[in-house]
Amino acid sequence: MPLNAPVRGFDQSEFETRTLNAQKRMAEQNLDGLLLLSEPEVRYFSGFQTLFWQSPTRPWFLFVPASGKPIAIIPEIGAALMRQSWLEDIRTWSAPAPEDDGISLLTDLLAPLAAKGARLGVMKGHETLLRMPLGDWERLVANLPGLEMPDATALVQGLRMVKSPAEIEKLAHICAIGSSTFARIPEIISEGMPLEEVFRGFRREALLNGADDVPYLVGSAGLGGYEDVIAPPSRRPLQKGDILMLDTGATWDGYFCDFDRNYAIGTPDDESRRAYDVLFRATEAGLAAAKPGQTCRGLFQAMQSVIAEMDDQGGDIGRLGHGLGMQLTEQPSHAAFDNTVLQENMVLTLEPSLGYGEKRIMVHEENIVIRADGAELLSTRAAPEMPII
Amino acid sequence: MPLNAPVRGFDQSEFETRTLNAQKRMAEQNLDGLLLLSEPEVRYFSGFQTLFWQSPTRPWFLFVPASGKPIAIIPEIGAALMRQSWLEDIRTWSAPAPEDDGISLLTDLLAPLAAKGARLGVMKGHETLLRMPLGDWERLVANLPGLEMPDATALVQGLRMVKSPAEIEKLAHICAIGSSTFARIPEIISEGMPLEEVFRGFRREALLNGADDVPYLVGSAGLGGYEDVIAPPSRRPLQKGDILMLDTGATWDGYFCDFDRNYAIGTPDDESRRAYDVLFRATEAGLAAAKPGQTCRGLFQAMQSVIAEMDDQGGDIGRLGHGLGMQLTEQPSHAAFDNTVLQENMVLTLEPSLGYGEKRIMVHEENIVIRADGAELLSTRAAPEMPII
Repeated sequence: MPLNAPVRGFDQSEFETRTLNAQKRMAEQNLDGLLLLSEPEVRYFSGFQTLFWQSPTRPWFLFVPASGKPIAIIPEIGAALMRQSWLEDIRTWSAPAPEDDGISLLTDLLAPLAAKGARLGVMKGHETLLRMPLGDWERLVANLPGLEMPDATALVQGLRMVKSPAEIEKLAHICAIGSSTFARIPEIISEGMPLEEVFRGFRREALLNGADDVPYLVGSAGLGGYEDVIAPPSRRPLQKGDILMLDTGATWDGYFCDFDRNYAIGTPDDESRRAYDVLFRATEAGLAAAKPGQTCRGLFQAMQSVIAEMDDQGGDIGRLGHGLGMQLTEQPSHAAFDNTVLQENMVLTLEPSLGYGEKRIMVHEENIVIRADGAELLSTRAAPEMPII
Repeated sequence: MPLNAPVRGFDQSEFETRTLNAQKRMAEQNLDGLLLLSEPEVRYFSGFQTLFWQSPTRPWFLFVPASGKPIAIIPEIGAALMRQSWLEDIRTWSAPAPEDDGISLLTDLLAPLAAKGARLGVMKGHETLLRMPLGDWERLVANLPGLEMPDATALVQGLRMVKSPAEIEKLAHICAIGSSTFARIPEIISEGMPLEEVFRGFRREALLNGADDVPYLVGSAGLGGYEDVIAPPSRRPLQKGDILMLDTGATWDGYFCDFDRNYAIGTPDDESRRAYDVLFRATEAGLAAAKPGQTCRGLFQAMQSVIAEMDDQGGDIGRLGHGLGMQLTEQPSHAAFDNTVLQENMVLTLEPSLGYGEKRIMVHEENIVIRADGAELLSTRAAPEMPII
């Protein structure tokens, strides 16, 4: 049965606070504006939420000025929805228009800034992409000589990393939906079921439990362990001796959970059982270490020191967890390279993994929120021993 | 019940043919290689299929040389899956690595081309994006003085527009799943059901009918018509007098259907009924016009001349349909600006829309494949009169 859901959307004060916080940081960095192009950033400051971003046809632009409300420059098809937001200045064009897909509207908006040699923050750092045609970007830059465009990735990611109470409520809700879905897995799946039917069953169950969608579902099953953690499902039926892993990113009101669970079909082999135990204890070490003031690097090391009992190679994943929110994976990264200091109200995954046996890999994952006194689980903690189906 | 599904994946010959066709066009345009960064392009030439692209953390690169197999430069987490493809040269790094996320591997690969002043095609045109950090792109370009980087958008989109028999088989299958799902709608939904439950019911039914996923589902309901066609669902219950529209992009084996259906809750108002009739006939005009040799512009005009009976403004959508395949929307566009000539085996949507009444909009959509003698429907044709629930 669906869990009781929070209210959809946010109060206007949420967007005012986000914008003021951005503008404070912009002032500190001498930025006269921010130009944002990607779905999560446009949504973060406007509340504009639509799956229509899946169509690559049209670019979308949001300008955050040094003071005042953001300005949207968007295709006309989005105007009715954007008018429901707190924004007032919404400029549209009839898109697609290959000859001028918003570029002249953007140029008009930014030309006064360019004329005075202003600084416009744009996101061009790690974990970003340019969500418009590169050719149009080059034309826009050429239209605006004099405009400095420093990287604002850290500014925006720094804001988004720390969640508001309303965001945490949504994240807790989708994590609870994920947990109740995984709890039903032993009743849904059985030996002989093709993996693609396992996936369909999981998605249907998540919807029944109140998820809006399950955009991300990957997993594997293999005798004595699995080899891959990002593949789509095959038609291979589950067999006795398989270790099965399902990893889901389900959504509610535009926020993700992201965690996985392992199951044994029949009795698990000793090596897989041992890998499970090591990863369970690595997660415990992560839960104990995840406090305000700790670094992501420290959190990584706390988990890695347990994983090293079985695998000191570091694995294929490249990190042992990450931020979570409007995207399946957000900043920061629990990795040796990331010295981000954990703060209260960050929502994170703990995702220890290890390689073992003949090319086998195992992953574990939990979702947490950082509270003043340490980690609070948003996902229902995995069983200490591998569940047997 | 699920429909009988085709075989998943493609024979190796499919990828060989795609690569040879690309290399033939590259030779005609004096291109020494293609650098591809986006999910559909990487998948098109390699077969690499994973939902993991939803994580923005890591960039992925595929190089298509002037002859021989493509070369993958990808994060280590994708190596096991990419090794199942037909590619042989797979270069990986432990990502994420903010200091060097594949850039030195790419530079090593491309430096010999740069040294001889070669031409590397990259996609920077309409309907593309740069799926890597802009800062890293700028560093890569600076690493490779002498390398010319012309736009290869038309080359790649031109190849992808015309589908192979195996692709059409997948598209026909997911369109059949979409049709059987819509056919069940009158049994699933009823007056008083909140729109978000209508969406959940549709998704669950599509999965039951054999869809792998329903990544895209938008829609609206409103008394005497709806105002928006891209919004997420509200909790508002369906009411007598509502016109309901559901527009879905469901997937099977990585290929999309994309069509919508309208329903009246109780008796529809006269204006909505008339709008439905006009759009039904506009689609008929599109079906009649969609033959090899026709242009997208001609197809647009054929539909627009019917729509003009009720709305001569052109609407908010910007076009009256588009290509369909690995993405919800692909090139070409049925619009006055697009002179693409229709060819056999193109898979397209016909998507006439109109504005009417007080800010109301209505959309209709069908999916077709162009055959030698004209349009073949992949979706089951909508009813000529609005279905009443």
